[in-house]
Amino acid sequence: MFGIGALRFGRFTLASGRPSSYYLDLRVVPSHPEAYEVEIQAYKSVVKSLGEERFDVVAGIATAGVTVSSVLAFVLKKPMVYVRKEEKGYGLSKLVEGAVRPGWRALVVDDVITDGGSKIPAVEALRKAGCVVSDVVVLVDRLEGGAARLAAAGTKLAAYADVKELADILLERGRLTKGDYEAVVKQVEGAKA
Amino acid sequence: MFGIGALRFGRFTLASGRPSSYYLDLRVVPSHPEAYEVEIQAYKSVVKSLGEERFDVVAGIATAGVTVSSVLAFVLKKPMVYVRKEEKGYGLSKLVEGAVRPGWRALVVDDVITDGGSKIPAVEALRKAGCVVSDVVVLVDRLEGGAARLAAAGTKLAAYADVKELADILLERGRLTKGDYEAVVKQVEGAKA
Repeated sequence: MFGIGALRFGRFTLASGRPSSYYLDLRVVPSHPEAYEVEIQAYKSVVKSLGEERFDVVAGIATAGVTVSSVLAFVLKKPMVYVRKEEKGYGLSKLVEGAVRPGWRALVVDDVITDGGSKIPAVEALRKAGCVVSDVVVLVDRLEGGAARLAAAGTKLAAYADVKELADILLERGRLTKGDYEAVVKQVEGAKA
Repeated sequence: MFGIGALRFGRFTLASGRPSSYYLDLRVVPSHPEAYEVEIQAYKSVVKSLGEERFDVVAGIATAGVTVSSVLAFVLKKPMVYVRKEEKGYGLSKLVEGAVRPGWRALVVDDVITDGGSKIPAVEALRKAGCVVSDVVVLVDRLEGGAARLAAAGTKLAAYADVKELADILLERGRLTKGDYEAVVKQVEGAKA
């Protein structure tokens, strides 16, 4: 997963406007068929642990989350909808795209969670559309407050891994310099402050 | 495909700003697992007719095209990238998301084509990223000038079906009123004028 340039170091600005010493770009995963397969299997294992039967629909958050939710829904043979960031000005304007049925229990899917800033509007949009939303699944939790923010919104975060676990493994395998490892730790610590 | 509310009649405004007497919303397809399966098989048949070996990467146009390109790339075990409509202001700003390799022959994928207005910028962005783009595949061609516009940009349109063919079948099967059928014909004729 990390031999494909998904993790980079430098100075980045997150969607929230906060700075970050690293950037986790899981959008490159689908460009590597073997990594994509591994990624989908990882999501499947999380869904299995949550209980596949607890969900009626897989809801991806546009756009990165849609590359996951599409395949996940397809292989699980479950309905899929996706949540836009903003309403389009044309066609049938709506935030949730797809044929949502009121009462559907939605599993929200995205690639990464940082502070939860982009997840909350998606959860709210799905609820407004009549869905019951109790769980959000991501591949990686950046450990910057996302889980707490989701909990406050009545949803539970399920992450396949968190960035500290990944950094530990990469450091151990010699795939991360000590300096880059510290950059990740510092970012996580900084979010707690 | 049309028992799921994908085709609606009324007054709509297309992305181009032009009015339309019908709206073809293929975004509902992934909400119906059986229809989604049929849809992907349809795309696969088009790709097969074009020659699967002619393409190195499947490039979806965000966001509807990504629900197709993700699964298509996954089942074909080919790399996938996607093209955004606008650059994000954060993270690693770019129009083409994924690990593009210069020289890759890209197959552009979207759900529908009208006048080609949203396809051309995607083709240009992929070319700017170093891809060779010769073909665009969609499920439905609305017959409003898209093929000609793509041809002018040096690309060839491959559509699984066009809206006139669909309307003919639906009328024959009694799934479309004569009035709705005429609305489709009028829209297509209007685009030629």
